[in-house]
Amino acid sequence: MATKYETLAQSFAALIEQGTLRAGDRLPSVREVVATRGLSPSTVFEAYYLLEARGLVSARPRSGYFVNARPERREEPQAMHPTAGQQAVAINDVVMAVLGTVRDRRVVPLGSAFPDPALFPLERLARGMGTAMRRLDPSQLLENLAPGNPDLRHQIALRGLAQGVPSSVDEIVITSGAMEALSLSLQAVTRPGDVVAIESPAFYGCLQVLERLQLRAVEVATHPRLGVQLDSLEQVLQHHPVKACWFMPTFQNPLGALMPVDKKQALVALLARHRVPLIEDDVYAELYFGAQRPPPAKAFDREGWVMHCGSFSKSLAPGYRVGWVSAGRFAREVERLKLMGTLAVAVPSQLAVLHFLKHGAYDRHLRRLRDVLAARQERALRAIAQHLPAGTRVTRPEGGYFVWVELPEGVDAMALHHAALARHISLAPGHLFSADRRFTRHIRLNVGHPRPEQSEAAIKALGRLVAALPGHHTPFTAAKGART
Amino acid sequence: MATKYETLAQSFAALIEQGTLRAGDRLPSVREVVATRGLSPSTVFEAYYLLEARGLVSARPRSGYFVNARPERREEPQAMHPTAGQQAVAINDVVMAVLGTVRDRRVVPLGSAFPDPALFPLERLARGMGTAMRRLDPSQLLENLAPGNPDLRHQIALRGLAQGVPSSVDEIVITSGAMEALSLSLQAVTRPGDVVAIESPAFYGCLQVLERLQLRAVEVATHPRLGVQLDSLEQVLQHHPVKACWFMPTFQNPLGALMPVDKKQALVALLARHRVPLIEDDVYAELYFGAQRPPPAKAFDREGWVMHCGSFSKSLAPGYRVGWVSAGRFAREVERLKLMGTLAVAVPSQLAVLHFLKHGAYDRHLRRLRDVLAARQERALRAIAQHLPAGTRVTRPEGGYFVWVELPEGVDAMALHHAALARHISLAPGHLFSADRRFTRHIRLNVGHPRPEQSEAAIKALGRLVAALPGHHTPFTAAKGART
Repeated sequence: MATKYETLAQSFAALIEQGTLRAGDRLPSVREVVATRGLSPSTVFEAYYLLEARGLVSARPRSGYFVNARPERREEPQAMHPTAGQQAVAINDVVMAVLGTVRDRRVVPLGSAFPDPALFPLERLARGMGTAMRRLDPSQLLENLAPGNPDLRHQIALRGLAQGVPSSVDEIVITSGAMEALSLSLQAVTRPGDVVAIESPAFYGCLQVLERLQLRAVEVATHPRLGVQLDSLEQVLQHHPVKACWFMPTFQNPLGALMPVDKKQALVALLARHRVPLIEDDVYAELYFGAQRPPPAKAFDREGWVMHCGSFSKSLAPGYRVGWVSAGRFAREVERLKLMGTLAVAVPSQLAVLHFLKHGAYDRHLRRLRDVLAARQERALRAIAQHLPAGTRVTRPEGGYFVWVELPEGVDAMALHHAALARHISLAPGHLFSADRRFTRHIRLNVGHPRPEQSEAAIKALGRLVAALPGHHTPFTAAKGART
Repeated sequence: MATKYETLAQSFAALIEQGTLRAGDRLPSVREVVATRGLSPSTVFEAYYLLEARGLVSARPRSGYFVNARPERREEPQAMHPTAGQQAVAINDVVMAVLGTVRDRRVVPLGSAFPDPALFPLERLARGMGTAMRRLDPSQLLENLAPGNPDLRHQIALRGLAQGVPSSVDEIVITSGAMEALSLSLQAVTRPGDVVAIESPAFYGCLQVLERLQLRAVEVATHPRLGVQLDSLEQVLQHHPVKACWFMPTFQNPLGALMPVDKKQALVALLARHRVPLIEDDVYAELYFGAQRPPPAKAFDREGWVMHCGSFSKSLAPGYRVGWVSAGRFAREVERLKLMGTLAVAVPSQLAVLHFLKHGAYDRHLRRLRDVLAARQERALRAIAQHLPAGTRVTRPEGGYFVWVELPEGVDAMALHHAALARHISLAPGHLFSADRRFTRHIRLNVGHPRPEQSEAAIKALGRLVAALPGHHTPFTAAKGART
């Protein structure tokens, strides 16, 4: 739930976005807002600080707050037509080669999938975990076996309820991070050789799991801002024996796309009609920049076809490996698979997260985290507009920490990856994000992980590298992209 | 490594076992032993205390130590001829139904697969984990990704080295307990539909993984004391396209069988000749009652065909979910599967175990644990000899915490399971331990989990229940079994 100051900041941000408030315009004074909206001065100040942190306004001493010049922007990337057929998946070698690079601490982690660990309350988590483990009666160990600690499942259900995701405790299974939740969900509803519908581009982790389980992928057209295109999905459902869909309707990886609420609702209805399970990867949902958490597709699930997968790895406790799935009608099957596969999630990890949810001021931590990520995204987008050459397009997600960049015609993202790595900059080439390695001039950048100065310098260096690549023949100019 | 006093105790235990020292014989005095063997008096006292704890000798005030009357014993169960063909596996429903019962704390956990959590240094582990996590630099989180924390892998390699298991750090992958190690190993070397050789009876967890991965099982004759029979294995290798073997050469679950060292060596040579990987489940090895850890088959692996799977769940840290596999030539494939599947083992768990290995006096804890388990086994075997009816046979493993009981003809173990559960006693019926549910009059008892008085009372109750079961027509007498 958004606080008052976030709601207020959001309303001003929307006015700026629409163009109602323009560069150089003065925001109403704090006194004016207090008078007209019945808010306290500190709420208004907080809202203005937030707008300033996000780079939208600047304070001028003794004059008030003024709207910043809108940074140059890049257009959003184009939706691409997916390959029509089903495909076996063989992506692992590429993924492994690229991801191995993110462990090198000298490398600027624009290619990383992980959030910046410095943004998490690791010390407080460790202390809470110690307390909980010392209090543990040994005979309670077994209570943490699959489906997982009952209190933790209760906390997750309560939090879901408050966010409009009515999961029952009974359908929640705690997992070793979201990856296990997703993989168990897929195993619960498919057999080797089955067809699974995925986004285009898709998260490479999804492609890897498909490969591992010997499933076949069929791609659905995915809009860079609005997510899965339902007309394309209907076509796919008509022409292929789809056994499951694996989608990320909120802050999709790599695009950052957010399906509008009505589209999510229509998606759930469509799949229920076809009796096809939706495996919903919702791991970035808590990292929204807007006024409130976008509801997941699960919020509209009446018949238990949605398997909603979440995690604390991106929002609270990286490295603790605590995720979950609200698996609807497939909950018992997922629980069995968990019990057979890895038995239980580590008890210290379960208790650490439980303790923090109960005593750790999770929402306060999240507000701070979101502010930092939003500000970092803003600065990175400015750097991209300034330093990447004409013809570059980029998404501007409303949450999460990725942006998806479409480079000009002729640029090979894999060549850029190698050139960048030689300069200690990592990035995730588009090749990782489809079974047929179709996104050859696209890159995913993690703009939430590096410190802002580091990001800016690295993006500037990428601009020079793109200009110097053999495939790129247009002279380097930081051309103005049209407004989206 | 055995301490001096353990070695000494072991030498006396062997003399008693052979019959050189008989009931009523007086052990040499402490002074005599000191004089003849050049040991310190405290070493000799410790050895005698250990023999007493294990129920082999008794102290008589001012007279010395005397060999106890040998308890009545049951014969060991007979080896059974395995089913000859390959079989699809479908065991899960039975396993789930039976294992659900062990979570009820009112039930005497003779059916449990878990060790008694009260025997583990959970408090010290928690404190060490807290220390290690508070010291953690957030940027080190990534170092714990698959293949796992480098220091922990180093510690495991060092420990292996000292025990005659020369694993290189490079082949070790940390996993979420041994179950994940075994399952990843199997996935690394098989595809759905492949044939895997297993023991008969086999650990149900193995059967579950086979079912989950859609593999076919072929059973190898397994001696209740000596483990896998190599002649039977040769037959199987000749007649079936075996892609892997999954065996437990040390303290097999459920039999407790220990393959002699020369048989282990021959096993490794045989499989290398056939180029068939051995997945070695070695999770009970640290729980030996003898003078030293029996070497695993991995100790004889020159060509990297053995995938040696271990765990800290039975020896140090139940619930922490830390295991590993030394995967030989398949290490990179296992690492990839781990990275794709659950990414990493929870960092707090990895650091907790690492901290304990470095600072926690692990060997001292293990010595105490082994003594308790050996003593509990001894008492349970006495109770079995006393209370279970004529015709009952039982194994007498040299480590671990299971015994395998063959009940008289006509007794149905599943019926006994239901009758026992009504009296709040759990047990693991033999039906769980083969794909064709062939062990219908066998039960596995966990004699290391319940407190000894609890075990004895429960075994006594089982005796009454067996006598009252419809299939059992011999009148109840606690007949003397022949000596093995």
